Amino acid sequence: MSKDQRETARTEAFSDGVIAFAITLLVLNLKDPLLDPTLAKGSLFQGLLAQWPAFFAFIISFATILVMWVNHHNMFTYIRRVNTTLLFLNGLLLFFLVFTAFTTSLLANHVGIEQTVDGRTAAALYSGNAILLGAVWSTISYYCARTGLVPGRPGGYRYLIGPAPYAVSFALSFFSAFLSMVAVLIIAGFWTIASRGFWRIALARTE
Amino acid sequence: MSKDQRETARTEAFSDGVIAFAITLLVLNLKDPLLDPTLAKGSLFQGLLAQWPAFFAFIISFATILVMWVNHHNMFTYIRRVNTTLLFLNGLLLFFLVFTAFTTSLLANHVGIEQTVDGRTAAALYSGNAILLGAVWSTISYYCARTGLVPGRPGGYRYLIGPAPYAVSFALSFFSAFLSMVAVLIIAGFWTIASRGFWRIALARTE
Amino acid sequence: MSKDQRETARTEAFSDGVIAFAITLLVLNLKDPLLDPTLAKGSLFQGLLAQWPAFFAFIISFATILVMWVNHHNMFTYIRRVNTTLLFLNGLLLFFLVFTAFTTSLLANHVGIEQTVDGRTAAALYSGNAILLGAVWSTISYYCARTGLVPGRPGGYRYLIGPAPYAVSFALSFFSAFLSMVAVLIIAGFWTIASRGFWRIALARTE
Amino acid sequence: MSKDQRETARTEAFSDGVIAFAITLLVLNLKDPLLDPTLAKGSLFQGLLAQWPAFFAFIISFATILVMWVNHHNMFTYIRRVNTTLLFLNGLLLFFLVFTAFTTSLLANHVGIEQTVDGRTAAALYSGNAILLGAVWSTISYYCARTGLVPGRPGGYRYLIGPAPYAVSFALSFFSAFLSMVAVLIIAGFWTIASRGFWRIALARTE
Repeated sequence: MSKDQRETARTEAFSDGVIAFAITLLVLNLKDPLLDPTLAKGSLFQGLLAQWPAFFAFIISFATILVMWVNHHNMFTYIRRVNTTLLFLNGLLLFFLVFTAFTTSLLANHVGIEQTVDGRTAAALYSGNAILLGAVWSTISYYCARTGLVPGRPGGYRYLIGPAPYAVSFALSFFSAFLSMVAVLIIAGFWTIASRGFWRIALARTE
Repeated sequence: MSKDQRETARTEAFSDGVIAFAITLLVLNLKDPLLDPTLAKGSLFQGLLAQWPAFFAFIISFATILVMWVNHHNMFTYIRRVNTTLLFLNGLLLFFLVFTAFTTSLLANHVGIEQTVDGRTAAALYSGNAILLGAVWSTISYYCARTGLVPGRPGGYRYLIGPAPYAVSFALSFFSAFLSMVAVLIIAGFWTIASRGFWRIALARTE
Repeated sequence: MSKDQRETARTEAFSDGVIAFAITLLVLNLKDPLLDPTLAKGSLFQGLLAQWPAFFAFIISFATILVMWVNHHNMFTYIRRVNTTLLFLNGLLLFFLVFTAFTTSLLANHVGIEQTVDGRTAAALYSGNAILLGAVWSTISYYCARTGLVPGRPGGYRYLIGPAPYAVSFALSFFSAFLSMVAVLIIAGFWTIASRGFWRIALARTE
Repeated sequence: MSKDQRETARTEAFSDGVIAFAITLLVLNLKDPLLDPTLAKGSLFQGLLAQWPAFFAFIISFATILVMWVNHHNMFTYIRRVNTTLLFLNGLLLFFLVFTAFTTSLLANHVGIEQTVDGRTAAALYSGNAILLGAVWSTISYYCARTGLVPGRPGGYRYLIGPAPYAVSFALSFFSAFLSMVAVLIIAGFWTIASRGFWRIALARTE
C-alpha cells in the first residue's frame, strides 16, 4: 500500500470505529420498563408495548446511521488520498453522527401518540441535526471534487441534495412529531437505493 | 489489494466494530448489588449470588454473539466481493445482534428461580430476536450463493437451518424461561462445533 | 507488509479504537433534561437551553480529541516501527485521552454562567489533565526522534511545546472556568492548523 | 496477504475492538461525586478526593488491560494462522477481559481505607477473575506451541506462569483489599517488562 492509501485506510478505520460505536450506543436508549419508576406498573409485556416510541426511534436511527455508513463507504471508494481539511470535515460529519445518539434519546422519551410540544421539539432537533449532517455531506462531496481528492469535477448544484430531504422532515416536525419521523425513515429508504448511484454520478464521472 | 478486497475488508471491519461493542456492552448489565435500592441489603457476596440470572444472561449472550462473530468470520472467508444489497443485509444482521444487548438486559432482570410471566416474556423476546437473527443468516447465505458473491451454488433448503434451533428455545419459553435459556446455550455450543463446517459445505462446494 | 509495518498498523488500529470510543462516549454526558429530577420542570426546549454547559463541554472535548486523533495520525505517518516502550508511552497517552471523558462530564455538570468554586475545580482538572496529555505527546516525540523510530533527529526544546498552551488554560481556570474553556477551544483550533506542519518539522527533517 | 494472514489479521482486529472498548468503558466507573446522593455533600474537590478508590481501581485496570493488549500483540506477532479452537480460546480470553470492567466497578465502590468484608470480597473477585484470565493465557500459549500455530515447541511447565502471580494477590485479598490491589499493580509492572521476552522465549525458539 502506498502512503496515500494507508492514510485513507486509517481515516476509514477511525470513522468506522466512531460510526460502529454510535450505532451500537443507540441500544442504550431501550430501557427495561419495569425499572422506570415514572411508568405505571404492569407486566413486562405491557411495559414494552407502551415503550414503542423508543423502539421506533431505535429503528429510525439505526437505519439512518447504517445508510450513512454505506454512504461513507461508497464515498471512500472514490477517494484517493486525504488531507488535513478532509480529516476535519470528516470529523465534523462524525460530530453530527455521534450527536444523533442524543437526539434519538430525546425522541425515544418524548414522541408518542398524543401530540405534545416536547415531542415536536425532539423531532425538530432530530431533523435539524440531520440537516446539518446533510450539509456536511454536501460540503465534503463538493470539496473532494473541487480539489481533485476524487477523480471527478465539481458538479454544480447537485451537492445541495444532502440537506434538502431533511428540510422536509424539519418542516413536518412543527405539525406532527410522528409524521416527521416517518419522513426520516423514508429518507433513509431513499438513500438506501440512491447511495451508490449518487457517488458514482457525483464523483466519478471521469473514470 | 484489489478494490473488491478493500470493500470486503471494510465491511468486515465495520461489522467487527459493531459486534465487538455489542459484546462488550453486555457487561453493563452486571450491576453492583449494593447500589440497587430495590434489592434487600446484605453483604456484597450475598448480593452477587442473588444476582446469578444477570451472570447467566451475560454468559449466554457473550457465547451467542461470540459464535456469531466466528460464524461471520467464517462466512467472509468465502465472500469475494460485496454489493449494496449485501451491505444492507449485513446491516440487518447487526441490527438484531445489537438488539441482543437489550433482550439480554431483560433476561438479566426477570429470569429467576421462581417462574414468572415476566421471565417467560423476556425469554420469548430473547428467542424471538434470535429467530429473526437466524433468518437473516439464512437470507445472507442464500443471497451470496445465488448471486455468485461466493463461489458456490444455491443449496436448496439447507439455508433454513439458521432460525430453526431458536424456534425450539422460543417454544420452550412458554413453559420455562430457564429451560429456554439452557436451549440457547446448547445452540451456541452446536454452532461452536458446526460453524466452519457449515460454511464450507453451504458456500464453497465448487472450490 | 513487513513485520514492522504490521505491528505499527496494529498499534494504530488499537489507538484508533480507543480514541473512537472515547470521543463517542462524550455523548453520554448529554442528558434528557426532563429526566433529571434536580432541574426545574419546564418544556424540553427550556431544559435544553439551560443545559448549554453540557453542549459546550461536548463540543470542546470532541474538538480536542479529534485534533489529537489527527495529530496521532500525522505522527504515525512518520513512525516506521514500534517497540515495547513506545507501546506503553502510547498507552499512557490513551489513558489521559480516556480520562478526558471524565473531566468533560465534570465540566458539563459544573461550569455555568455564575462563577462557582466547583466550576473552577472542574476547569482546573480538565486543563491539568490536558497538560499531562501534552507532556506525554512531548515525550513520545522526543523518544521517537532520539531512538530513530522516526527518521529524524532530536530537536532541542521544541518538544516542550506540547503541554505549554494548556498551562495557560490551567492558569485561567483559577479566575474563570468559562475563559479557561474558551482557551482550550482556541488551543484545539491552533493544533488544527499546526498539527501536520509540526510533525513535518519536528520529526521528518531528514526525509 | 494470504488467506491465513487475513484470518489472523481479522482476529487481531476483533480482539483489538473488544479490548479497546473494555479499556475505555472503565472510565464510566468514575462518577461526579456531587451527583451521588449517598455521599456527604461538600465541594467538588473534597468529593473527588474521597473517591480515590475509584481512581485507584481505574488506574490498576487500565494498566492491567493495557499490558494484556501488549501481550496479545506480542503473541500474535508469532501466530501464523488461526483455527476455530484458537478463535474460541481467544473468545474466552476476551470474556474474562470484559468481565474485568465489572470487577473494577466493584473495587471502585468497595475498596477503601477502612477494612471491610465487602472490600475483601471485591478484591478476591478481581484476583479470582485475573487467575482465570492467566489460566486462559497459559492454555493459549500451550495450545499454539503444541499444534504448531506458532513455530515453537511445547515448553514444559513454563506456561503455568500465567495464573501464578494473581494467586498471590488472591491470597492477599483475604487479609487486605488494598494490599491485594497493590499486588495487581506490581504484576502489571512485571508483565510490562517481561511480556515481549516471555513470548520470544516461550513461542519462538525455533526461529
